[in-house]
Amino acid sequence: MTMRDEILEQPAVVGHLLSSARAALDGLLARLDRKRPEYVVIAGRGTSDHAAVYAQYVLGVRNRLSVALAAPSILSLYGVAPDVSRALVIGISQSGASPDIVAVVQAARSQGAPTLAITNTPASPLAEAAEHLVDLGAGTERSIAATKSYTAELVAVAMLSAVLLDRDGRQDAFAELDVLPEAMTRVLDTEPDVQRIARAAAGMERCIVLGRGFEYATAREWALKLKELSGVLADPYSTADFEHGPKALVEPGFPVLAVAPAGVAGSADLRGLLVRLRTEHGARITVLSDDTATRALADEAVALPEDLPEWLAPIVSIVPAQLHAYHQTIANGRDPESPQHLSKVTLTR
Amino acid sequence: MTMRDEILEQPAVVGHLLSSARAALDGLLARLDRKRPEYVVIAGRGTSDHAAVYAQYVLGVRNRLSVALAAPSILSLYGVAPDVSRALVIGISQSGASPDIVAVVQAARSQGAPTLAITNTPASPLAEAAEHLVDLGAGTERSIAATKSYTAELVAVAMLSAVLLDRDGRQDAFAELDVLPEAMTRVLDTEPDVQRIARAAAGMERCIVLGRGFEYATAREWALKLKELSGVLADPYSTADFEHGPKALVEPGFPVLAVAPAGVAGSADLRGLLVRLRTEHGARITVLSDDTATRALADEAVALPEDLPEWLAPIVSIVPAQLHAYHQTIANGRDPESPQHLSKVTLTR
Repeated sequence: MTMRDEILEQPAVVGHLLSSARAALDGLLARLDRKRPEYVVIAGRGTSDHAAVYAQYVLGVRNRLSVALAAPSILSLYGVAPDVSRALVIGISQSGASPDIVAVVQAARSQGAPTLAITNTPASPLAEAAEHLVDLGAGTERSIAATKSYTAELVAVAMLSAVLLDRDGRQDAFAELDVLPEAMTRVLDTEPDVQRIARAAAGMERCIVLGRGFEYATAREWALKLKELSGVLADPYSTADFEHGPKALVEPGFPVLAVAPAGVAGSADLRGLLVRLRTEHGARITVLSDDTATRALADEAVALPEDLPEWLAPIVSIVPAQLHAYHQTIANGRDPESPQHLSKVTLTR
Repeated sequence: MTMRDEILEQPAVVGHLLSSARAALDGLLARLDRKRPEYVVIAGRGTSDHAAVYAQYVLGVRNRLSVALAAPSILSLYGVAPDVSRALVIGISQSGASPDIVAVVQAARSQGAPTLAITNTPASPLAEAAEHLVDLGAGTERSIAATKSYTAELVAVAMLSAVLLDRDGRQDAFAELDVLPEAMTRVLDTEPDVQRIARAAAGMERCIVLGRGFEYATAREWALKLKELSGVLADPYSTADFEHGPKALVEPGFPVLAVAPAGVAGSADLRGLLVRLRTEHGARITVLSDDTATRALADEAVALPEDLPEWLAPIVSIVPAQLHAYHQTIANGRDPESPQHLSKVTLTR
């Protein structure tokens, strides 16, 4: 089982999760009805932190919930547990083993907060620490770079949002998720395009990755895959933060990657920025987009499936980004199955 | 008035703020006594977002407050205002002009949440939007790269923490702040060291910047100054997130900058990581530290003032980082007073 195999498995993993995770979320819902959370705190590291970023937008935009991304080292370094007794506290970890994430959930539970573990390892310290558990059921993930566990984490977050909307009488929210397995299958057809783009950029050493709104998580995760695997120093930015300074870096030929779908997350200001980066700075632009006009702005473009609900698009758009990082790694003369200096489970404290 | 002048002004700016801002914070305290916040939401972009990161640690560790860094685009892109009615909501902006930050504070106030503006521009939309105002009083900041407004924002956050502790009977918290102007004056003596280090690294194109705990904000801000000014693609990481992947980037000669003080934020695991990066990866390590043993681990080291309370150290340690970015910019053949493509006030929406 290689990293590429695990990328290709994702439609099946998501299809399975959509039918298996509902019961656990209904259990959480019953608990929440007794004490509605006033806000949400999420702890995750690395790839799982990007699922938390996705949750901040999904739960914010669709459920009007304010989401705090925890700083686990407040507890693990300084020994202080902030008061989260009025929050729903979620720990996200593929392995369920990271002591700092486990500690955040344990402390929250001891304060009486409702707690949820989202993990691919149901027999893990994280699963044991939380009151409620979504088992991602993605099967063993052997590659060091997480792929199928990331999309499964995103789906778990989307299902949580849908379950909360269901309670408020929006019965249609859950049905929207059904489009995912087929859209994820279709997007695998982009592989020849991303492979060609990666080969043409062989030797790339640094780049900027842009995305905003729901797709900000995609930009972060895309950049992390590139850094873990290919040796490219890839720096992710939301458009707004990028305008506040790092834009100064972009010189002629500088590679800029962007996730720019047709909806709000690829709105006029992101397209305008891409045009300025190309014409004024001479940047070399690669975009992932379902929008023909946006693709026409770029030096290189990958077509995403059209007509997806915007809040679900990141679950699909990360797939060509994973494939891109995989092929960029090979193009840069490295082995995506054996990234340098990394191990699968990182036990940060 | 150049950027370097503004860096040198910082001890005076901080001294002024320590005496001027207390009244505004006491006003906020009176408001909070009527309805204690259950958590804190902070909105800022760019440099001001790093003051928010500092606040997450300071208010978390010292006040046990859970802090959420707002995603302003939930409101500005998607038109949804998450429910923050039980939070204290803070907007931080040098100019007070960024519409997305103003909108977060306006929405919070209309929900009945207590609101605070921290800005260098008391006649600004942000100041008008919030119920309470800390005027940083740093004087006009002409340089495009923020320096004195950043340290002033950190001091405002530290004063807020101290005022909240005072209410809980910890009268000594406020007195600790008095060491700052003198420590900031002393740290300016590092300039010849950072200038020499920058010259020796002339032409640097990319680097990693490490810091954790209270000093994570310093790593983020140091990296941003390098990106804004010098053309170096500087990627900041907390030690924990760095171990979860980006570590793979570090090859022989790769420059790693670190803020590693003697306390918890420079604890054994950060020192251990620096040793491994140097011996196993062949990284070239530059540290800022008040600890002799930590400095001895590095290829290049800058001595920070000793015996500062750890929670206040970031207000001092950013100063040599600012000077380093300034001199690295000159060493890279650029003009720190005229960064490419940036303007002072960025009106992101």
